[in-house]
Amino acid sequence: MTDKAGSSIFWQVGKISCSMRELLIQQKALTIWLTGLSASGKSTTAYALEMELVPEYLCYVLDGDNLRHGINSNLGFSAEERTENIRRVAEIARLMNDAGLIVIVSLISPLVSDRAMAKAIIGAERFIEVYLNTPLEVCEERDPKQLYSKARQGIIAEFTGISAPYEAPPNADICINTLNFFPFEAAQQILRIVKPRVQMPFA
Amino acid sequence: MTDKAGSSIFWQVGKISCSMRELLIQQKALTIWLTGLSASGKSTTAYALEMELVPEYLCYVLDGDNLRHGINSNLGFSAEERTENIRRVAEIARLMNDAGLIVIVSLISPLVSDRAMAKAIIGAERFIEVYLNTPLEVCEERDPKQLYSKARQGIIAEFTGISAPYEAPPNADICINTLNFFPFEAAQQILRIVKPRVQMPFA
Repeated sequence: MTDKAGSSIFWQVGKISCSMRELLIQQKALTIWLTGLSASGKSTTAYALEMELVPEYLCYVLDGDNLRHGINSNLGFSAEERTENIRRVAEIARLMNDAGLIVIVSLISPLVSDRAMAKAIIGAERFIEVYLNTPLEVCEERDPKQLYSKARQGIIAEFTGISAPYEAPPNADICINTLNFFPFEAAQQILRIVKPRVQMPFA
Repeated sequence: MTDKAGSSIFWQVGKISCSMRELLIQQKALTIWLTGLSASGKSTTAYALEMELVPEYLCYVLDGDNLRHGINSNLGFSAEERTENIRRVAEIARLMNDAGLIVIVSLISPLVSDRAMAKAIIGAERFIEVYLNTPLEVCEERDPKQLYSKARQGIIAEFTGISAPYEAPPNADICINTLNFFPFEAAQQILRIVKPRVQMPFA
């Protein structure tokens, strides 16, 4: 990653630190990063988790699909563009964490290396990796958006699981077998791990 | 702006709307966009304004220089890259607004067209343009980072005001003559306009 800004760009330091923000809104900033195949249940779980956290906690879902209509609308699906897509989402999560928010990311993020990059950007202490472990056959059967069908027909190229790789996380912080759980149960499972991490001490 | 995502990307709808978030944290989301030459006082004013808003309001400063070390670290200073830089900052402000935050942007953003794009992305009803109207000679005399000096020597290319254009906003919502005010006074001046816009009705 080159830093084109070089030596002519200085770092501006604000007077409100992240710890001060966390104190003000009484929560610890954290990024909960949901990875998994298309149709594995990431977005449903993300929004179910958001419902569990609000109104007690201030949180926000960064959904990969939605961001591709906005900040990432000028990116395609080549390996490089997917990496850039993930890098930008991680940078936004970092900024939102710095603002004090709890961030829930819903993003296929198929490669171990790209997720490692995201973790490095956000900071290991603020990064929780959640693997939505749904078998490809099940995702393909669900196929709510007919994407697998289009990928099989070659209408969509470089589709994760069909014509592009998905590398399962070898050491996810949370691994959810979505066949055994409804999304709100998956959210509860994540919440049990996440809640002690977002609560302020002595709160 | 092409949307490379095309028809294979669907919009995921969360259950927590922005109005619900605004109710929860008792503030109206808004972006205060500070434009002006380098050394015109944008960052100082932005952080002074943040100090005025916190702890009553949850806000965050998006500083152009800082973002060039993160999400915009792969962008240079050509006209196209500057536009992309501004587009990304606007998209992040929009996301943060959607999360309920008040955002203060400190960014040279030299062109009328780029600021119009930012306003369109963020939404006119949430966009307040603040022009830090400091004469070039004064900025060049201040030159805290020796950038004008380097630009005059040709060490830095495409530097706003010297070798790249700055188009003053013809209709800024707030125009501040920084010669007459200390930064905290400028912040107070902005606050008078901004406060009624961020307060919840009946709060």
